[in-house]
Amino acid sequence: MASNAFGTLFRITTWGESHGKAIGVVIDGCPAGLPLCEEDINQALARRAPDKNAYTSSRSESDLAEIYSGLFEGKTTGAPISIIIPNRDADSSKYEPIKHILRPGHANFTYLAKYGEFDYRGGGRASARETACRVAASVVAKKILSHFSIKICAYLSSVSHTVAQLTNQTIDELIKLTYASPIYCPDSMAAHDMMQCITEAKNTDDSIGGCVTFIVEGLPAGLGDPVYEKLEANLAKAMLSLPATKGFEIGEGFLSTQMLGSKHNDLFIRNDDQIKTQSNHAGGTLGGISTGMPLKGRVAFKPASSIQQTQTSVDLDGNQTTLTLPQGSRHDPCVAIRAVPVVEAMCALVLVDAILLNRSAKL
Amino acid sequence: MASNAFGTLFRITTWGESHGKAIGVVIDGCPAGLPLCEEDINQALARRAPDKNAYTSSRSESDLAEIYSGLFEGKTTGAPISIIIPNRDADSSKYEPIKHILRPGHANFTYLAKYGEFDYRGGGRASARETACRVAASVVAKKILSHFSIKICAYLSSVSHTVAQLTNQTIDELIKLTYASPIYCPDSMAAHDMMQCITEAKNTDDSIGGCVTFIVEGLPAGLGDPVYEKLEANLAKAMLSLPATKGFEIGEGFLSTQMLGSKHNDLFIRNDDQIKTQSNHAGGTLGGISTGMPLKGRVAFKPASSIQQTQTSVDLDGNQTTLTLPQGSRHDPCVAIRAVPVVEAMCALVLVDAILLNRSAKL
Amino acid sequence: MASNAFGTLFRITTWGESHGKAIGVVIDGCPAGLPLCEEDINQALARRAPDKNAYTSSRSESDLAEIYSGLFEGKTTGAPISIIIPNRDADSSKYEPIKHILRPGHANFTYLAKYGEFDYRGGGRASARETACRVAASVVAKKILSHFSIKICAYLSSVSHTVAQLTNQTIDELIKLTYASPIYCPDSMAAHDMMQCITEAKNTDDSIGGCVTFIVEGLPAGLGDPVYEKLEANLAKAMLSLPATKGFEIGEGFLSTQMLGSKHNDLFIRNDDQIKTQSNHAGGTLGGISTGMPLKGRVAFKPASSIQQTQTSVDLDGNQTTLTLPQGSRHDPCVAIRAVPVVEAMCALVLVDAILLNRSAKL
Amino acid sequence: MASNAFGTLFRITTWGESHGKAIGVVIDGCPAGLPLCEEDINQALARRAPDKNAYTSSRSESDLAEIYSGLFEGKTTGAPISIIIPNRDADSSKYEPIKHILRPGHANFTYLAKYGEFDYRGGGRASARETACRVAASVVAKKILSHFSIKICAYLSSVSHTVAQLTNQTIDELIKLTYASPIYCPDSMAAHDMMQCITEAKNTDDSIGGCVTFIVEGLPAGLGDPVYEKLEANLAKAMLSLPATKGFEIGEGFLSTQMLGSKHNDLFIRNDDQIKTQSNHAGGTLGGISTGMPLKGRVAFKPASSIQQTQTSVDLDGNQTTLTLPQGSRHDPCVAIRAVPVVEAMCALVLVDAILLNRSAKL
Repeated sequence: MASNAFGTLFRITTWGESHGKAIGVVIDGCPAGLPLCEEDINQALARRAPDKNAYTSSRSESDLAEIYSGLFEGKTTGAPISIIIPNRDADSSKYEPIKHILRPGHANFTYLAKYGEFDYRGGGRASARETACRVAASVVAKKILSHFSIKICAYLSSVSHTVAQLTNQTIDELIKLTYASPIYCPDSMAAHDMMQCITEAKNTDDSIGGCVTFIVEGLPAGLGDPVYEKLEANLAKAMLSLPATKGFEIGEGFLSTQMLGSKHNDLFIRNDDQIKTQSNHAGGTLGGISTGMPLKGRVAFKPASSIQQTQTSVDLDGNQTTLTLPQGSRHDPCVAIRAVPVVEAMCALVLVDAILLNRSAKL
Repeated sequence: MASNAFGTLFRITTWGESHGKAIGVVIDGCPAGLPLCEEDINQALARRAPDKNAYTSSRSESDLAEIYSGLFEGKTTGAPISIIIPNRDADSSKYEPIKHILRPGHANFTYLAKYGEFDYRGGGRASARETACRVAASVVAKKILSHFSIKICAYLSSVSHTVAQLTNQTIDELIKLTYASPIYCPDSMAAHDMMQCITEAKNTDDSIGGCVTFIVEGLPAGLGDPVYEKLEANLAKAMLSLPATKGFEIGEGFLSTQMLGSKHNDLFIRNDDQIKTQSNHAGGTLGGISTGMPLKGRVAFKPASSIQQTQTSVDLDGNQTTLTLPQGSRHDPCVAIRAVPVVEAMCALVLVDAILLNRSAKL
Repeated sequence: MASNAFGTLFRITTWGESHGKAIGVVIDGCPAGLPLCEEDINQALARRAPDKNAYTSSRSESDLAEIYSGLFEGKTTGAPISIIIPNRDADSSKYEPIKHILRPGHANFTYLAKYGEFDYRGGGRASARETACRVAASVVAKKILSHFSIKICAYLSSVSHTVAQLTNQTIDELIKLTYASPIYCPDSMAAHDMMQCITEAKNTDDSIGGCVTFIVEGLPAGLGDPVYEKLEANLAKAMLSLPATKGFEIGEGFLSTQMLGSKHNDLFIRNDDQIKTQSNHAGGTLGGISTGMPLKGRVAFKPASSIQQTQTSVDLDGNQTTLTLPQGSRHDPCVAIRAVPVVEAMCALVLVDAILLNRSAKL
Repeated sequence: MASNAFGTLFRITTWGESHGKAIGVVIDGCPAGLPLCEEDINQALARRAPDKNAYTSSRSESDLAEIYSGLFEGKTTGAPISIIIPNRDADSSKYEPIKHILRPGHANFTYLAKYGEFDYRGGGRASARETACRVAASVVAKKILSHFSIKICAYLSSVSHTVAQLTNQTIDELIKLTYASPIYCPDSMAAHDMMQCITEAKNTDDSIGGCVTFIVEGLPAGLGDPVYEKLEANLAKAMLSLPATKGFEIGEGFLSTQMLGSKHNDLFIRNDDQIKTQSNHAGGTLGGISTGMPLKGRVAFKPASSIQQTQTSVDLDGNQTTLTLPQGSRHDPCVAIRAVPVVEAMCALVLVDAILLNRSAKL
């Protein structure tokens, strides 16, 4: 099964293991004529792997992507764009002592059940490192969205019980506040509490979950498709394809199940020359197709499975044992932080595909 | 964009408008040799359109499906299975007076934005009637699952703030209790409160949301694929492709964002000759691939958009107006009830595809 | 494997056995706003099943298609178009006596090897009757092509050793001459000899092969895609997916293998404001993408496998036996005749998809 | 449009321009557990780029592939296999003087029409160099075929009017003879004449066409699918996706159009415990599905478009001009020679996909 590709007309295929020579992505179907350079991609990668701080893992992956194909004189040509990111900081030896033990919350058990083989070094293909390729590809997607004045902001909206409160920021303000925060949370008060909570988890050799919210502005009405290719269906698949995700919501999400129809329905109004809705409980789509109102959703990230505490487990021979990760293992106390640019990336990939597919809606 | 198909190897394509001659589904890729008859399908359709009761709409759609192709001497042949369900009870005239008005929470605005055309009669393609085709197709899928001793149960797990509480029922008991309930809720105490809540919404010309939970037992470890084709990613897409859905969770879902890793991680244990996990917070997958533990998730349904209250809106010429649905319009006060068999259907479709795709995992 | 669908954005799925209730096709991805009615389709179907004459089989299939979905007020809506063609003239009883015998040149052996099941009545899914669905779908495709002033003509270009000679007819003249011929051959002199040849085959209980040529005019430059989705690659697949086809050529085809590069290369010239080529040995594409010159290719059809002569064969139990088709069996002495409208249909389906896909080539 | 991928379950995506840093291929969907190393691939690449001889171009591309992912301890893991082949011998400066001129028989005109951009250096993506990636990927495919004892031989079967004559060689003998020939023609007598013909073309600054035949032995009956995914349809697409191809035949191909049904039909016989056919005019498939008899087909390659003769043409501004390739340009006098391993590669890719897809035919 070819399971390493995403998208229909704008299609990415990623490859590479966490501790192999490199990881990479091929973008097939990018329209011709788009200006692009490596620096664009490296900026985005830097954002995904923020400076060492107390809230993220200490892997120093100052990733430097190389574009191997698809550009000519600084612009895309319609040919596939191959981006390669060397793995610089891969030390597999630490995984040796635990390679025979099933890791709670990890994929080694299921990969072995499926394939009979598992590249245990750094989690191989199951590692979140794969998401760097999604971010690299999304740089191209976001440039196309920019061309149509579409803007995306993803941010850390909750950690454990602490929830970010937004006032009426514009999307530009929101982006600015998010980028300025060490944990990508635009509400500095909430961020303070979140950081305390993360520190506490870390200090007890534990991890904690969190939510990432995404908002898109500037989308025209009409994107997405009826029935099986609803915009939110593709967003849901995109988000649940990320490591550690456990849930997806659009608009009011699960809260809508506690609302009355008369409160949830967004009433249509005439606003200058445009038809809008008074509220936006729906989150920007109706019947799977964008309304032109902001697209808004939320993604749930579980607490990281890699924790420093000793856990009971079973080894590959079926013997009961315990697992203790090697000292100095790198893992995030809250994976939702690093997920912020990745959620943004998946959003961009879904939307660019929807824009291209929409070109065949009418004669 | 071909947006009316779902699945890769076991692929369905649905067609038909709510108020056209018929609706139908073509199943392409069903393995040969499976016993099948029309009665199998009609039983499932009857469950989707339960007897008139106070909690569902009063459309009397005693659907009778016909199988037009793909069977020979009572068994599937590998050829496409075409199932057609005539529309018996379609009265479009009621929609005439409101055809020029945008309906809050409905898709007529977005379909017009996309296509410049909209078949307003009964909602056309945006109608939940399309889901009857999914249920019909799922009958075939469920027969394949049965062959592998895989069982699915979906049930109404909450309405507004009332949440069903399960004790330690087996899946067979759960299925039995669910089928016996007029609102497909296996907890009769909760069901009582839910029915009150639904009645109240109905009596005030309103609607109310709810959640549907699905559980699958008997799945082998190894189904689903890494990265973009994770089992939960395909389930999420499947569920968000249903009308009125606003959210999807697997395992603990959004609750996991408030948990510590040490609590969320499911520890591996040896159980007889099998490797299992002590708990099942993950909901039956790790790294996108089934663990062999029960698959468990939840889907959020918003309150129905069609309510009898007068709502302000805009007509197709952009004039502010009000919308009052014609007296005697049929709509469900709580669409989550009728969604129960459809959630079960989507589960079955995803799983059968995963089973067939998994056959190419190893040499 | 879902093998009954063709196309990417304009995608058809066909279903139905030769001797079932009906056959049908679902078109998914037709742009909205295209005028369409049943009469359009029935005219095309009539052409595929010409009046009884000495050169085609005597099945009186005056097919009447019904459109079940996808239209509103006489125009397409973007929703799937379901077309159903009832099987009126299906008498399966004749096949009873030979159902246990492998038929030389037929698919019952291979279907049984693959599926373990075979619907022997009329050849089931392997019957050329399936091509009626392709013709029905192509009516919609040809309307879109018309909108862009693109015209297709397919015609019978050879039977056995007799080859049609064309003078410098315009495509309109060619279409007219082809339609006027009982065997769809625009060269009446050659047609005379072909008819003699066919009569001879028929009189000796035999069959004879032939070629169908297709020409498309009005195609813009730029259709088709590089590498794996070359326009001629998709045409080749389309044609080889037809029953009884054994070969495909574009431009000079196999003859080009005997040419020098200096003769085969088409030189570019400036013609008014357009760039054209002096000759068109390439047949209208370079590098898989249309040049704007006429698209021209040829398809080889083997002699029909169903012949009235007694043939040695093997039965399903592996015993050597003989096969004699029942008296009065209907079969074409030259399947290439009836293939003419179907080749045209496949051309149209490939081109419409290419037009829609091309909309994403540039920013 | 994502047009750089081929295959469904065993899916390759290629990238890279002739004169970029590298070219590469990602194989997505290779089953786990297959032994593989770089040396396997480099041997196959060496065969594609034979030693400098008088009959092929003098580019010294001693290609060395690197495997970047998908292997663990010498075996495939089910993860995508990324193979990268650096471009060592790329001198783009020669193309500078002619970059503004349309090249007869080349794709620069059509790429510009489609994309508005063209990487003229070495033909960019339109270069036959892309086929090295197909050969690299086919090494993996052929290992899977080997596992099932399936053998493929492609060979140069004609150049201009000279046709290779085969006696009753086994496939192993045929492979040996083909590999031993400097032009991959197993009939040494014919090869002698072919070489004369090629030398003559070369000496007159010209090029000549040729045919490549492929034969596959050991295929089980039942591979391939009905209707649109016929085995020969996928082979036809595979072959016509190669540069310079103008035609495809299966079995008797175009010759079958001159045959009577009574001669063309292959009669079934019982042979030991197997059902076979006496003759094999069909070329190994019936109804699109393999019969178990040898699969046999033929591909037409036009004379190379790049010739040293001065040709009239048009420049990008639309002015009439002439084109003379720079002295020392490298081009093949007969591209069919170098196409031999590539035809074999495409065969292997189609067959592996068919094997994996066939696993879902039965329950």
